[in-house]
Formats: sequence, C-alpha cells, structure tokens
Amino acid sequence: MEKIQRNRNNYTLLVDFYELTMAGGFLKSGRAEQIVTFDMFFRTVPDHANFAIMAGLEQVIDYIENLNFTEEDIDFLKSKGIFDEAFFDYLRRFHFECDMWAVPEGTVIFPGEPLVIVKGPALQAQFIETMLLVTLNHQSMIATKANRIVTAADGRPVIEFGSRRAQGYSGAILGARAAYIGGCIGTACTLADKLYGVPSMGTMAHSWVQLFDTEYEAFLEFAKAYPDNCVLLVDTYDTLGSGVPNAIKVFTEYLVPNGYRPKGIRIDSGDMAYLSKMARYMLDEAGFTDCTIMASNSLDEYTIDNLKLQKAAIDSYGVGERLITSKSAPVFGGVYKLTSVFDGEKEIPKIKISENVAKITNPGFKKLYRFYDKATGKALADVVTLAHETIDTDTYEIFHPIHIWKRKVLKNFEAVALLEPVYEQGQLVYDMPSLDAIRDRARDQVERLWDEVKRLESPQEYIVDLSQALWDLKDQLLKAHRKGIS
Amino acid sequence: MEKIQRNRNNYTLLVDFYELTMAGGFLKSGRAEQIVTFDMFFRTVPDHANFAIMAGLEQVIDYIENLNFTEEDIDFLKSKGIFDEAFFDYLRRFHFECDMWAVPEGTVIFPGEPLVIVKGPALQAQFIETMLLVTLNHQSMIATKANRIVTAADGRPVIEFGSRRAQGYSGAILGARAAYIGGCIGTACTLADKLYGVPSMGTMAHSWVQLFDTEYEAFLEFAKAYPDNCVLLVDTYDTLGSGVPNAIKVFTEYLVPNGYRPKGIRIDSGDMAYLSKMARYMLDEAGFTDCTIMASNSLDEYTIDNLKLQKAAIDSYGVGERLITSKSAPVFGGVYKLTSVFDGEKEIPKIKISENVAKITNPGFKKLYRFYDKATGKALADVVTLAHETIDTDTYEIFHPIHIWKRKVLKNFEAVALLEPVYEQGQLVYDMPSLDAIRDRARDQVERLWDEVKRLESPQEYIVDLSQALWDLKDQLLKAHRKGIS
Repeated sequence: MEKIQRNRNNYTLLVDFYELTMAGGFLKSGRAEQIVTFDMFFRTVPDHANFAIMAGLEQVIDYIENLNFTEEDIDFLKSKGIFDEAFFDYLRRFHFECDMWAVPEGTVIFPGEPLVIVKGPALQAQFIETMLLVTLNHQSMIATKANRIVTAADGRPVIEFGSRRAQGYSGAILGARAAYIGGCIGTACTLADKLYGVPSMGTMAHSWVQLFDTEYEAFLEFAKAYPDNCVLLVDTYDTLGSGVPNAIKVFTEYLVPNGYRPKGIRIDSGDMAYLSKMARYMLDEAGFTDCTIMASNSLDEYTIDNLKLQKAAIDSYGVGERLITSKSAPVFGGVYKLTSVFDGEKEIPKIKISENVAKITNPGFKKLYRFYDKATGKALADVVTLAHETIDTDTYEIFHPIHIWKRKVLKNFEAVALLEPVYEQGQLVYDMPSLDAIRDRARDQVERLWDEVKRLESPQEYIVDLSQALWDLKDQLLKAHRKGIS
Repeated sequence: MEKIQRNRNNYTLLVDFYELTMAGGFLKSGRAEQIVTFDMFFRTVPDHANFAIMAGLEQVIDYIENLNFTEEDIDFLKSKGIFDEAFFDYLRRFHFECDMWAVPEGTVIFPGEPLVIVKGPALQAQFIETMLLVTLNHQSMIATKANRIVTAADGRPVIEFGSRRAQGYSGAILGARAAYIGGCIGTACTLADKLYGVPSMGTMAHSWVQLFDTEYEAFLEFAKAYPDNCVLLVDTYDTLGSGVPNAIKVFTEYLVPNGYRPKGIRIDSGDMAYLSKMARYMLDEAGFTDCTIMASNSLDEYTIDNLKLQKAAIDSYGVGERLITSKSAPVFGGVYKLTSVFDGEKEIPKIKISENVAKITNPGFKKLYRFYDKATGKALADVVTLAHETIDTDTYEIFHPIHIWKRKVLKNFEAVALLEPVYEQGQLVYDMPSLDAIRDRARDQVERLWDEVKRLESPQEYIVDLSQALWDLKDQLLKAHRKGIS
C-alpha cells in the first residue's frame, strides 16, 4: 500500500490530552471494551453557504493505518506521572478493531448529518477523535472554499497559490490537495504535487525581475530559459508603462523569431480590472491575442465575481491567502459525539443536551440517505435514519425536524445511501479512489444540486430531515431528561 | 543536535514551484552564484493591533539543516519535463552557503522592519523563501494572537485547546508551540508536549459523561481514576440542575473522605458569566472555595475581556478555534523581498515599486535598532539603518518616513541591535534558546512597551523609522525609476 506510507511522521500522539486521560479511565472503570457508536458531523457551513465538500478521508485512513505507540511515546506518557502500567500495556498492544462508515471524499455534505460513524470499543472509538476532526475539518473547509472560488470563476482556471500564508506545513500541502478536490486546476505547492499528484505550476517572482539590471533583460533571460513556458510577471516597476511593453518586446524580438508563442503575463498588484483590460488591448495590438492574462492579488469568490462584473480581461486566477486559510471563515466546526452504548446486542441511545438547542445531538446508530429526483437527477433532500431502517417505498414523507407541520411527500426518487464501509473490525475494506476521481465526484455532486442551493450569497436552504423513528427517539430522550432521568 | 532531527519529514520541496523555475533560470543565465540580499518583513499586524511576537525561527533552522534533494525528489522534478541535467547536478550537490541574521523568537516586532536578512548566492537565498515565510507567518500569527488573549485574561491562566479545529497537523502542533510563546500556560495537544515541551493537559469530554449510566456515576468513576487531578465537565445535561450538584456530591462523598481535594469544574456551553457565578456560589456553599472554574466556549480576547467586565467567576480559560486559527485575522502577511545585488564588493541596492505605496520596499542591506529609554526601560522607537551605519552618539534624530517634518531627538537611550547572526556562510552559529527562555523573552519584551501601545482596541502607533541614509537611498531610487532608469 504505497499511499499509506507516504506520511512518515508519527501522529499517534496528535490527540487532545483528554483522549489519553479518558482512555486510562475507561480501562480503570472496566469500560474500555464496551461497544459504542460515535457520529462525526458539523453544524454550520462557513461563509453562510449551504453545502460543503467532504475531504480528508484518505488522511484519516493514513493515520489509523499508522497508529501505534512507540516506546518513545510510552516513555513520554510515563513522564506525565498519572498513568499506570496496565494502560501502557494496552497501548503497546493497541490494535484498531472498530467499524467505520464514511461519506466518500468529494461528496456534497450538509450540516447535521453523520459524515463518519465509528462503532467499536469505547477506548478506541474515542481515541481517534482529534485526528479525525482536525483532518476532516481542515480539508473539508478548504475544498468548500475552493469550490466557491471556482464557481465564481465560472469556467476560468483557478490555481492555488497560498503556501507561504498557510497555517503550517500540512496547511499548505493538504490544503493544496483539498483545493484541487474543490476544483482548482493546480497549485504552487511543489510538495503537494510530489506527494498527492496535485499539478504544480509557477514561473517567476518579482525578485527575478529585480535581480537583473533591467526588466527587459530579466524577461529575455527567462524567455531563453523557458521558451515553452514563458509567463512574465509585469508589475515589478510599472505594469503598463514598462512591464507589458517589455514583455511584448521579448515576445516579438526573441520568442516569435525562435518559433515559440508566449504563454502569458501575470499581474500581481494594482487595479486588476483596469490593468487587465489595458494589457489585453496592448497584447492584441501587438498580435498576441493568444497570450493569456493571469491575475493574482488578494482574490476570493467575491473579488472574482466583481471583476467578472466589470468585464476584466482575466483568463485565469492565482488565489493565495484567502483560499489557503479560508480567510473569511477560517474554522470548520466538525464535532464527534457519542450516540449510543451497547449492552451486548442491546443499543442504549445517548444524547447530549445543551441550553443552545442547535448543540443537542441526534441519538442512536444511524444511516444517511440522499433522495435524487429521477426526472431531473437533482438532489431533493437528505434524510438521517436509524441504522435498522430501510427505504423501500415509492413515496416517502419528509418533515422539518423543528417545525414538524412542514411536511412533503417525495415521489419518483432514487434514495442513495451515502455512508460507505471503510473499516470492518479494524480491517480496511475501502478501495481508495484516485485524487482525480475524488475531484470528478465533487464536480458531479455539485452539478446535481439545484442552482439556488449554490448561490454565493443567501442561498436557498437544502433539506436535511430526520426519519420519523429517529425524531421520535430524540423526542423521547429529551422528555426523559426533562423528567430528571439521566 | 537533538533538536534538528525531531522533524522527520522532508520538506525540501515545500516550495512554490516558481522557486524551482527561478533556480533553474538563475543557473542558465549565469546568475545562480551572484550574491544578493533579501529581507523578510510584514506590513500590517493582524487584528488592527500594533505589534506582533516573532516565532518560528527554530523551525526555519530545522528546515535549512535538513534541506537536501533525494533521488526521489529529483525523479519527481524530472517528470515535470522542464529542467535540465545541470540543474539536477546542482540540486544533488546543494549545500547551503548563505549568511542569515534574524530577530530572536519572542521579540516584539513591528511592521516594516527586517526580521530576517539573508545574504548569499541568488539561487539559494531565493530558494528558502516559501518555507521561511510559511513558518514565520504561521507561528508569529499564533504567538501574537495568544499574547492578546493572555493580555485580556489579565493573569488568569489560558490553555490552548484548538487542535481539532487547526488548519492541519503542523497548525495544531506548531500552533501550540507558538501559543505557549505568546503566553499560554499549556495546550491540549499531546504531541506538542512530546516534541516541543509545551505542557499538555486535559481531563474529560462530554462522551465520558454520556458513556456511563448516570452523570453521577461518570463523575465518580473519573474521581476514582484520577483523584489527584479531578476536573469535572459539568454541562453535558444541565449545568446548574445536575452537573454542579453531581460534582459536589462526588467531591463530598468520595474525594474528601479519601483525603483528596477537588481540582475544579469546567463549563463548555451556555452563558459563562451567569453559570460561573452560580457555580461559584454553589461550590463555596459546599465548602469547596478552592475548587477552580474553567470556561471553554468560543473564547477570544474580546469575550474574555467582556466576561471580566461582568465579573464572571472564571479562574482559567481554555481557548480553542479562535486562537489556533487566529479566527478574527487568520493571515499574517510576511513577505521576502530582494533588497540588493552585489557586483563583487559593490552593492547595487534594489527596490520594488508598486502603485500601492505601502508595497514599495526599503532597498539595501540593513540593520535594525530598538531604542530604549534608560530612565524607564521602555521602548521608544525602532530605526532601520543601512548595514554600514552605527549608532554611537548620545542623541539621535528620528523622523517620520512619509511626513518627514515630524522629527524628534532621542536622548538618554540605549540602542540595541535586534538582528542576531544565525548562519555564517551556511554554518549554523546561533545558540538556540529553550522554549521557556523564548516565552520569558516575549513576556519581558511586552513589558518593555508602553501600555498605550498594547491596548487591545485602537492602540497608539509605535514608531518605526528609517535612518536618514536609508531614506535618502530610497528617495534616490524612486526618483531614478520615475526618470525611466530601471
């Protein structure tokens, strides 16, 4: 398994310390082997958007496959002075035995639905919480942001340019992977290409232009070095006064006579609408109608949408800090909550109550279905059910989980189960798709949403409902807690 | 060197692809060995603040010490189809030969001043750009944010709790390191403790409470497992209705009779001001005046400052997503710009012009001084000078770099050079301080600022000026460019 060994870091201890105190506590209280279920889900989509893109599952699997406690790890834990030998023995023998189901990467996902379900011994199912969350939260956030930016670019290529402003190394590398899943065509991050096959690209910085005695010399030397890949950065001194004229001069005097066509120019500062239109005019006048213009200055979905409105002559976008940090909404709030405890075969559903009703969890071991309209192929609604439920009827009544009088009968649908088996008793049973297959899935999934759900501002809400059985169970647990039975 | 080998990942190719195209181009154009200087600096402080805290230098050094191109790296680069054998030969022999000066970690830093200066062969000095920026941008951002939160907490301990919402793994691990530098007392991230010695801490999640049949049983089992470290999470079902009463019951019925004192309770949802005051009353009434209350729900410097205003009975803060992502300002905009090219011994200063005047660079090979008032010990101003300048007078006239009639004569000062040698011709000459020494430096540095500079909202601007010689050089280069000499 080549993929599994790419990450040579041991992230076994990338856990909140309380995962360890709880693990030790489960052992002491005899609860370590009790079978439980956990749901991973999120509550709101960043940027007031309506849907997100699932990403990061492959790295969750990488983590689990490499999960092991070295003697160095155990020595470190000993130094904390609160764990006992029985705990260290357990860690030395640690062997992942859980079942796991997950929504595949590239899937469109909505708040409130289980994206990963883990079933297994309490100690183990609890232990993987931190890495599962940091991985899926980070990559899903970036894939979602990238998808918004790609949507705004409306067919023009978007390249991820943000490594230097990423929040750390995996922020840059796995951020580039997630941005590609979301629809970017490539990245500036070379290591993301080597490790994950995200196409890396780039040409020159301002320093290249400054190093030479003149801008013209800098452009000419770059054209000589990369005649097939000649994209010139034209804003080091004066975009329209010297940059574009010097680029045209090098195209005309060196590239064309030597049998090459220029690839493009890049503008990295100033007013992109004005500069791109003027540059386009100058390039066209000089006969370089095929020379593209790339823009790369503080872009995101909003600026790109505005530039389009102003008919900026931009052919592609390099997007940096606002994508790689999801600057306008830099937190993806996925959580991992206990949903049931098994007493032998008997399931005891569990709920977390909160004064904030949005934070009350959905109890029980579950499934997730997406209903597609057979006529249009568009997604109609998602329904979360209990695990034992099946959907084998021609009609299905959905209802709003809070305003329960709001009801609708679905007909002529195809109900697709979204959670796929990933682990069975600790054995990996998931056939990992290629990165390009994941990216294709994201594109197809987004196409299957109604346009109004995809609007960048004030989108229509997509329906995620609970089955009647799940709603009844939740209601019953809430009422029981009100009566003081907890 | 134990420190250098902690990071087993090879980040050599964590570079923007253009660093490689430029490297290849420098070789082809005969410019690879030309000596140049670069400055790393930033333009604005996140959160409209006035100063930042330098962090990440140790990891920049880790990177450089481990910088080498494996045959696997070279095979990957071959697959891109644009580089030649001479380039690969260079990479195989790559040996870092630059000089580097840097402001030590934990130093208070301001916009517009050089924080790292690199002098050496153009190819090498350029190549390290991406890793230098991602490392210093990320850690300086988090150290700065942590310092703001710690300032708001006004002596009450702040613990970093955000791993699950970090932007990737190094976001969590090195974010925890940076948060500690900024003044947090510890982290939930266990791996940050193992790798960097940031104290890790934590007790239980809601899932612990849910797993047991009753909240009381969950608390009792935890008290039995960790009688010395018993912090109970009281908001799983009903904070004041069941959580605090059950905690008090376990304290009274189990801990006290067995000779232990409770450590504390934690509240993770609901109104922190009201709940903490009521919980304090209940704990005091039960005789647990020494039992502390920790709050951990969507906190940052603003909510903490507000909770203090409302006299919330909170003894310590667990701060998550808003710290680990610097949510209110998730980008630290450090840049790395060419400042001069050497022709033998002769320096040719370089400038980057921009229509945005804030983006015009300061040319030339430089030094950075901080002037401290000998009477109060407080920092008066920073001055950026050319490298050959010395400050050996009793008085020094500073002036505003834009409004140049604004002038002030400094007297009775101590001028401290802030940039320390890190590499000399590729040899590491820097004695790396311990993490605690860095954290102490940050605290001392912040203490040496006037209070008005540290205000969380609308702080007074701190003065960073250019020496007369540097100002004259910049003015001369700008005028020369206006005359078309570029």
